[in-house]
Amino acid sequence: MTAFLDNLREYLKDIKDQDLKKAVAEIPINELIEIWDDLDEEEELKLFRILDLERKVDLMDTMPVSKQELLIRSLTSEHAKALLAEMDPDDLADFIQSVSPEVRESVWNALEDEAKEEALLLLKYDYDDAAGLMTTRYLAIRPNLKVAQALAWVRRNMQNVETVYYIYVLDPLKRLIGIVSLRDLMAAADDDLVQNVMVKEVITVFQDTDQEEVAKILETYDLLALPVVDHYHRLLGIVTFDDIIDVIREEQTEDIYKMSAVSASRETYLESSVFALVRRRIPWLIILLLAATITTNVIAGYRHVLEAAVVLAFFIPIVTGTGGNSGTQSATLMIRGLATGELRLQDLWRIIGKEVLVGMLIGISLGILTVLRAILLPPEVTFNEALAVGTAMVFVVIVATLVGALAPLAISRLGLDPTVMAGPLMATLIDVSGLTIYFETAKLLLRVM
Amino acid sequence: MTAFLDNLREYLKDIKDQDLKKAVAEIPINELIEIWDDLDEEEELKLFRILDLERKVDLMDTMPVSKQELLIRSLTSEHAKALLAEMDPDDLADFIQSVSPEVRESVWNALEDEAKEEALLLLKYDYDDAAGLMTTRYLAIRPNLKVAQALAWVRRNMQNVETVYYIYVLDPLKRLIGIVSLRDLMAAADDDLVQNVMVKEVITVFQDTDQEEVAKILETYDLLALPVVDHYHRLLGIVTFDDIIDVIREEQTEDIYKMSAVSASRETYLESSVFALVRRRIPWLIILLLAATITTNVIAGYRHVLEAAVVLAFFIPIVTGTGGNSGTQSATLMIRGLATGELRLQDLWRIIGKEVLVGMLIGISLGILTVLRAILLPPEVTFNEALAVGTAMVFVVIVATLVGALAPLAISRLGLDPTVMAGPLMATLIDVSGLTIYFETAKLLLRVM
Repeated sequence: MTAFLDNLREYLKDIKDQDLKKAVAEIPINELIEIWDDLDEEEELKLFRILDLERKVDLMDTMPVSKQELLIRSLTSEHAKALLAEMDPDDLADFIQSVSPEVRESVWNALEDEAKEEALLLLKYDYDDAAGLMTTRYLAIRPNLKVAQALAWVRRNMQNVETVYYIYVLDPLKRLIGIVSLRDLMAAADDDLVQNVMVKEVITVFQDTDQEEVAKILETYDLLALPVVDHYHRLLGIVTFDDIIDVIREEQTEDIYKMSAVSASRETYLESSVFALVRRRIPWLIILLLAATITTNVIAGYRHVLEAAVVLAFFIPIVTGTGGNSGTQSATLMIRGLATGELRLQDLWRIIGKEVLVGMLIGISLGILTVLRAILLPPEVTFNEALAVGTAMVFVVIVATLVGALAPLAISRLGLDPTVMAGPLMATLIDVSGLTIYFETAKLLLRVM
Repeated sequence: MTAFLDNLREYLKDIKDQDLKKAVAEIPINELIEIWDDLDEEEELKLFRILDLERKVDLMDTMPVSKQELLIRSLTSEHAKALLAEMDPDDLADFIQSVSPEVRESVWNALEDEAKEEALLLLKYDYDDAAGLMTTRYLAIRPNLKVAQALAWVRRNMQNVETVYYIYVLDPLKRLIGIVSLRDLMAAADDDLVQNVMVKEVITVFQDTDQEEVAKILETYDLLALPVVDHYHRLLGIVTFDDIIDVIREEQTEDIYKMSAVSASRETYLESSVFALVRRRIPWLIILLLAATITTNVIAGYRHVLEAAVVLAFFIPIVTGTGGNSGTQSATLMIRGLATGELRLQDLWRIIGKEVLVGMLIGISLGILTVLRAILLPPEVTFNEALAVGTAMVFVVIVATLVGALAPLAISRLGLDPTVMAGPLMATLIDVSGLTIYFETAKLLLRVM
C-alpha cells in the first residue's frame, strides 16, 4: 500500500491534470478510500477535484463532516451543485445541520428546488429520531397492481431510490397498508395481485421514535429497512440498515463516554475547541469530587486511630482502589445485562446470591494476597497491621461487589439511566463503606480505642 | 401490552390445544417476540409447541442459546428435526457450538445429510473469523449468461438462499470474478451479458479475516453482504449485514468489559457459574492490586510528613480519585478516537497541546473548588493545609490528564490493545505521581522538612 501511495505522490507532483484524471480513474474506489487518510490536505484537494461525480459521493460518504466541508468548499459552485444533487437526502440533511453557518448558506443556495424540499422536510425532525434518519426516496405502489405490472414498474422507477428491495404498498391516502420484498414479488405468479402477495403486518416506527429503539427493532427482525409513519399511519420515509449501523456505533461511543463520565459530542476530538473539551469533562469531575469529599470526613473521624498507627494511611489507596475496581466490574455486568435485556429486575435475588458468593471468593483471595504482600515486601509493617489490612480487604470487596451490582439495578428501577448515575453514587458508597470497614477492622485488631 | 398478556394467560390456562393454536396463529410475530420475555417457562413451552414452523424459527432467532436449547429439548425429535432443517446453516453451526454436549449429540443426529455437510464445513472455522459468520447459501452464476436468462435463473433458484439481492459470478474453478446486484441486473438490458453488467472490483474478505475487520469493511462500503474467499480467490460463502450487526453489538460488549477489567464470555450472566464469574474478574483485580501496592511505598516514604500533619491523610482518596477520574476521561477519548480511526499517532503533538490546556483549566477549577470545600465544611483544617491540598490538586489533574492521554497512544504505538493495557499502567502512574505531587506540595507549603 505504501509503494502504491508513493507512486501516486509522484504522479500528483508533475503530471498534467488530463493524464492524472485518466490514471486515477483506474484506481478502485476501495483503494482510494484506504489511502485517503495518508494524503495531506493539498493532495486530497487535488485528487478530489478530478474524481468523477459518483466516486466523489462514495468518498464523501466515508468522511467526517469537517472533511466533507473542506472538500465541498474546494469545488467550484457548479461542481458543488452537481455533487450535492447526487447525495442522499438524509445524508444531505445531516450535512446541512452539521456544517458551519457560512458553508450552510452557500450549500443551501446550490441546491435544486426538489432537493431543498426534501431537505426541509427532513430538517424539521430531531437528529436522533427515526425521522432524522430516514430517506424519502423509496418505492411505493398500489395494492391492486398485478405482480408482473409491479415488477415492470419497479424496473422503470428504480433510479434515485435508496433501496429497491422493499416496496411499500400505499392506499390512496398514502397510508401504509403492506410491504412486499422484491424477492417475494419475483417468487410470486405474474398475474397474482400485489395485495395477495404483500405482508400486511408491517413493522413500523413513528417519526419521533428514538434512534436507539429504531436500531433495536431493525436488529430484532433482521430487516433491510424500516418504514417511518405518522400517527395517521401515512408513510413518511424509510430508515435503511446502513444508517442503523451508524447509529449503533454512535450509541456505542456514547455509552463508553458515559461510563467514563465524559459527555458525548457530535464534534470529533480534533475539531473540538479546548473550551468545548473542558465543558464535556468538568461537570462530572465536580460532582464526583464533591461526592468524594465525604471520605475526608470519614477519615477525619478516625483521626485518633491514624495518630496511633500512621501505617494505616499507607494502605488507603489500595483499599479504595480495589473496592472501586470490584464495584465497577459488578456494575458493568449489570448495566450491560440490563441494556441487552438479558437481566431483569425480577432476577434480583438470584443476582444478589451470585454476587455475594463471587464477592466472598474474590475478597478472600485478595485479602490473602494483601497480607502476603504486606509481610513480604517493604515498607515494613507488623503482622497484626498486615492482618488488619487483609481482613478489611475481604469485607471491602464483598461490600463493593454488592454495591456495584445493586446501584445500577436500583437506579434502573427508578427509571433513570444507570450508565450515568451509577458512577458517583457507587464510588461514594464504596469509598465511604470501604474506609469505615477498614478503620473499624484496624481498631479491633490493633486494639486502638 | 399487559392486558394482552393477561388475556393470553387466560387462554393458556383452560383452552384446548386445537383452539389455542388457532388463536395464537392470529398474533403477529412481533407481538409474540415482545411478550415472550414476560412468560414463565411453562407458558413458553406450551406456546412454542403449537406455533407453526416458520414462527418457531423466527422466534428462536431472537433468543440466547440457553433458551434455544430449552425450547428444542421440549420438542419431539420429529418436530426438532423439522425445526433444525429450517435454520440457516450459519446459525445452526453457532447453535451446535454453543449447546451443552448432550443436546449437541441429539441435535446432530436429527440433522439431514445436507445440513450436516454444511454445518461441518462451517464448524471447521473459528467462531470469530469471517468464515465462522458466513452462510453457504448464496446465488452464483456464470459470466456468459444473458441478463434475461440470469433473472429467470434467479427466480427459479431463490428458495433456500440467504439473500437474492447480490448474485456472485464465478468462473469454472469457482473463483469469484464479479458481483452483480439484483438491482443492477434489473436495470440492465435483457440481452446484455452478465459479464458486462457485473462489478469486477469485488470487495472480499478471507476466511480467516477477523470479524471486527469484516464489520468495518461492510460498514465502510454500506454493503448488504460480503463474499468470503480462500487464498485462490474461490468463493466459500457470504457474510450478511444482519450477522455483522450482531458482531458490532458483541464487540461493543467486549470493549465495555475490557474497560472495566472484566473478561468477555459467550455465556450470559445468569448462565455463568459463580466460579466462571470469579475467573472472569479476578485476574485483572490481582494485577491492579499488585500494581497499586506501589502507592503503599510512596506514602511510606512520606511517613514523617504524615506524622507531622495527619490531616494530609484525610485527603488521600480525593487526590487519587480525582486523578483517576480525569485520567480515565482523557484515556477514553483517546481509545475511542483510535478505535474509530479519527485520531492517529501523527496527531500526537496537537493532542498533547490540547490536553495540557484542558488539564490546566480543569485543574485550576478543581483546585479552587477543593480549597473552598476544605475551608467551608468540616473537618476543620488550617488555611495552609487547604491551600496545600488545592495546589496539589491542580498539578495532579494536569499530570493525570496527560498520562491518561499518552498511555493509550504509547500502548497503541507498541502494537498492543490500549483498551486492556491502558488501565493498570495508567492507574499506577497516576496514583504514584499524584501522591508524590501531593506530599511534595504539602511539605513545601506546610514547611515540613
